[in-house]
Amino acid sequence: MPYRSPVSDYEYIFENVVPLTQVTSTEKFSEADADTVSAVLTEAGRMCDEIMAPVQRNGDLTPAYLENGKVRTSPGFGDAYKAIAEGGWVSSSASPEFGGMGLPLSVTHAVNEMMAGACLSLQLNPLMTQGQVEALEAHASDELKATYLPKLVSGEWCGTMNLTEPHAGSDVGALSSKAEPNGDGTYSVTGQKIYISWADNDFTENVVHLVLARLPDGGPGTKGISLFVVPRNIPDENGDPGIANSLKVVSLEHKMGLHGSPTAVMQFDGAKGWLVGQEHDGMKCMFTMMNNARLGVGAQGIGAAEGAYQHALAYALDRKQGRSPIEGGTGTILDHADVRRMLTSMKADIFAARSIAADCALSIDMGHATGEAEWKARAAFLTPIAKAFGTDVGIDVANSGVQIHGGMGFIEETGAAQYSRDVRVTAIYEGTNGIQSMDLVARKLMDGGEAAYRLVDDIESFAESIKSSHPELAEPVWQASETLREATEWMVGQGELNERFAGAVPFLRGFARVLGAHYHLKAAVAEATDGPRTKMARFYIKRLLPEHVGLFAHAMAGAADLYALSEEDLAS
Amino acid sequence: MPYRSPVSDYEYIFENVVPLTQVTSTEKFSEADADTVSAVLTEAGRMCDEIMAPVQRNGDLTPAYLENGKVRTSPGFGDAYKAIAEGGWVSSSASPEFGGMGLPLSVTHAVNEMMAGACLSLQLNPLMTQGQVEALEAHASDELKATYLPKLVSGEWCGTMNLTEPHAGSDVGALSSKAEPNGDGTYSVTGQKIYISWADNDFTENVVHLVLARLPDGGPGTKGISLFVVPRNIPDENGDPGIANSLKVVSLEHKMGLHGSPTAVMQFDGAKGWLVGQEHDGMKCMFTMMNNARLGVGAQGIGAAEGAYQHALAYALDRKQGRSPIEGGTGTILDHADVRRMLTSMKADIFAARSIAADCALSIDMGHATGEAEWKARAAFLTPIAKAFGTDVGIDVANSGVQIHGGMGFIEETGAAQYSRDVRVTAIYEGTNGIQSMDLVARKLMDGGEAAYRLVDDIESFAESIKSSHPELAEPVWQASETLREATEWMVGQGELNERFAGAVPFLRGFARVLGAHYHLKAAVAEATDGPRTKMARFYIKRLLPEHVGLFAHAMAGAADLYALSEEDLAS
Repeated sequence: MPYRSPVSDYEYIFENVVPLTQVTSTEKFSEADADTVSAVLTEAGRMCDEIMAPVQRNGDLTPAYLENGKVRTSPGFGDAYKAIAEGGWVSSSASPEFGGMGLPLSVTHAVNEMMAGACLSLQLNPLMTQGQVEALEAHASDELKATYLPKLVSGEWCGTMNLTEPHAGSDVGALSSKAEPNGDGTYSVTGQKIYISWADNDFTENVVHLVLARLPDGGPGTKGISLFVVPRNIPDENGDPGIANSLKVVSLEHKMGLHGSPTAVMQFDGAKGWLVGQEHDGMKCMFTMMNNARLGVGAQGIGAAEGAYQHALAYALDRKQGRSPIEGGTGTILDHADVRRMLTSMKADIFAARSIAADCALSIDMGHATGEAEWKARAAFLTPIAKAFGTDVGIDVANSGVQIHGGMGFIEETGAAQYSRDVRVTAIYEGTNGIQSMDLVARKLMDGGEAAYRLVDDIESFAESIKSSHPELAEPVWQASETLREATEWMVGQGELNERFAGAVPFLRGFARVLGAHYHLKAAVAEATDGPRTKMARFYIKRLLPEHVGLFAHAMAGAADLYALSEEDLAS
Repeated sequence: MPYRSPVSDYEYIFENVVPLTQVTSTEKFSEADADTVSAVLTEAGRMCDEIMAPVQRNGDLTPAYLENGKVRTSPGFGDAYKAIAEGGWVSSSASPEFGGMGLPLSVTHAVNEMMAGACLSLQLNPLMTQGQVEALEAHASDELKATYLPKLVSGEWCGTMNLTEPHAGSDVGALSSKAEPNGDGTYSVTGQKIYISWADNDFTENVVHLVLARLPDGGPGTKGISLFVVPRNIPDENGDPGIANSLKVVSLEHKMGLHGSPTAVMQFDGAKGWLVGQEHDGMKCMFTMMNNARLGVGAQGIGAAEGAYQHALAYALDRKQGRSPIEGGTGTILDHADVRRMLTSMKADIFAARSIAADCALSIDMGHATGEAEWKARAAFLTPIAKAFGTDVGIDVANSGVQIHGGMGFIEETGAAQYSRDVRVTAIYEGTNGIQSMDLVARKLMDGGEAAYRLVDDIESFAESIKSSHPELAEPVWQASETLREATEWMVGQGELNERFAGAVPFLRGFARVLGAHYHLKAAVAEATDGPRTKMARFYIKRLLPEHVGLFAHAMAGAADLYALSEEDLAS
């Protein structure tokens, strides 16, 4: 059973759970009516299913490698990339001014997820470009925009992010790369960067690096950092890739997974660069890129989960083993309650994570379209949840996929292990899930919990509104929203941030658990009868939602007992 | 920070949590006093730390391979194996009659865990031999015993288990390998077996296969299966390895991890074999081997967790990143609450899993020493919990280990990923954790819950007994034991096994969660002051124990909603 993009699930979500009409009824996105969106998703889905999914295994079996300083990519990746670019999927939310479709991010996000499910390692390439396009649209000079954006949006060139250095990972402010003004408006950028995804390839004409570096008068910490465009080949007077810049791929990492995506150590030796935005304002520019990139990585987790789920379901429907425990079963392992429990959990969690991320994307669109602070705050609050929960679901689902395969799951030839190895990094890059959780309980609660409480109110009032029609489902969700409110109040009440940090990860997960129930409930209520959405909601609410009790107990335990144990206690 | 075997933790557990004096005060094990056990653990620990741990990475970096039909093992594995054999660690519980030390299984189990933490892929070799020794001691003729046991116990030869066939995994009864009597008391064994761990090597003189096959008059299903000893080289008149038998390693699997352990497809072409036990009684013989092997695999999970934990802690103590959030911190990432949360969770879960497995091993010893049905039932009940929870902890802890490393965790060179990839199979082999859970709620509750309730009574009465001295810790454990009792009653009350199976996995995990609290409580109470064991117990009880609420809700949800969704619903 080959991969099939979840087009219909997105259609259902956009119609019933996270209504896209809110977005398409704004002036900004008035062209994206339901039929257009359906057509876009269908067309993108076809490309994912027919062109990207068939090369997914190649990335693992024949990893990218470095040959005389050039990256050679996995078989078929170049052609598949061309299909992505020709379809306009590199950056479909980009402004039509630069060749984009100007689609709502909600739609681009859905396409990102579908592409990630088809071939995660290749999809990472356009995802990086998307972030770069956003950063340049928001911060670059008109000249830079004119030179770079059309080439990036069309996919002729692709983009990378160069943040991390060996001793500056989560602590970006510690970086030591330097930029010196050349006196002609350009800069010489020097330094070493690590973990550079898709630092080079053999299928685009040029690669454009966005590099964080410090100017001579840049102070210490994050406030002294500036952002530069540093192209691999310097555009000539016609805007075509010209002479080679002073930069190189030093080496590629040997990773646990995602072998189709070359991850490089990059060396910049006085490479020519152009300033993006203001001097010393690089972190602000980078945050534009990173926020949406976080949602994008959440989409990667969900997409990988979808791919792993379909792969495991296909195996379960094919594998015969033992006597069927039920009358009229299929004779496959799908007849077994525990296999069903695993598959249904996987699907239920994918829906929850997908809906959370879709709501985040929609809120970003609404923030852009309306300029309203409330939408922006909702988007900002949902971003770390979408990233961390989406990628945790990716890891859990892929792990269950291995388990469903039994012994075959541990054998690489089946491909189940690849999903598990590939998706693992998504909980780490773009800010580890721990960092996401700390962002949620610190920065995202700086409004005194306003954005959080609005979400809790949404959950509670919707459950309240259907208590009489769907008592069995609504009551536990209502109860859970009360517990969520208490946990949120507890978090907001902690003056010491470290008290919050001590429970940040379980708090984020608990928030996602309850939100997931809310979306399942919406999906169920939209059904006329006791159909599959209602059955799935029942499963989620009865079996998965109760996890929140333990999570919030953990979340509110405070920091003291974490520091009570000494280094020696931990080491003994 | 190199690997250090958890000798002192075992000493503490055997003294205070799962008292080994019960075992050593029996006549059978009277020689194993506390000093002897400490000396044995210390000596084994030194071998693990100094000889096995240094070759652990070799298994991953230079996997075993097949060369002209011969298995070539990873660098250093041969020498490390010799150290295991010379120390007497291959099968230290074997009878002195055959060269064993006759140690309690509790001690052998502890050594197994320490060896697994040092080098999981190599440790699997003696673990397989141990199982074979047990099966032969229990079921083989005196002649077979005399020929094979001394060589296996000394480690000169090693043993394998040949159960699985391509279409007979969890459903062993479906196997199709055949055995024909040769008329001289020997048999000709023919068939293909898969997933044969350590099917061959280049460091023992011989390899002895235990093979399940069907005699011509063996009926269908598990009742028609017999067990055979099939040596790679047929022992000559002096008992030395003689002519090659008609069997071969067809290929080695390309696995997600555990690359140091060659996993083979084996072909038997009329290979000469000797019957073990009675005709058609092979499953019973195999179960002798499998039950303890299940505990042995649980020990693998726990050992891998210990190795991954130490590896992650060493990284955290070394890695500087960002401003320390606390006064007087180390300046490393250990200062961060979320890193501490992860590390403390890992250590707390390792202790819980280790104690459960130790109690299981001790119960097996007591069953042997006293012959009492109650001890045997306790051992049987704890076995699937020790296996499934121990290996789940292994997977979770190794996964957290990757996370603590941040970006470095995804880079293979750090070794964090290896723990995660290696340990993954332990939740699958020797019966998947789903199978373990089904065994727990079906076969192990066939006594009407008697063995289960005895454990619940233990938990409850111990908590009760310290309510006044340790109210903060005892109360939640007591409450949890009540919830556990209700969940157990629910399980016992389900006439339809499938109702139980639908919640088997969360039930097993919930049972382990509450048991873990019980052992943490015992460890705390044995301390005079509010020391590290009490602090750890507080952490576990406040933060991890509450998980049981969600697990038991899931466990008691019943089968109906699992079957409410059709195949089409799952695929749409």
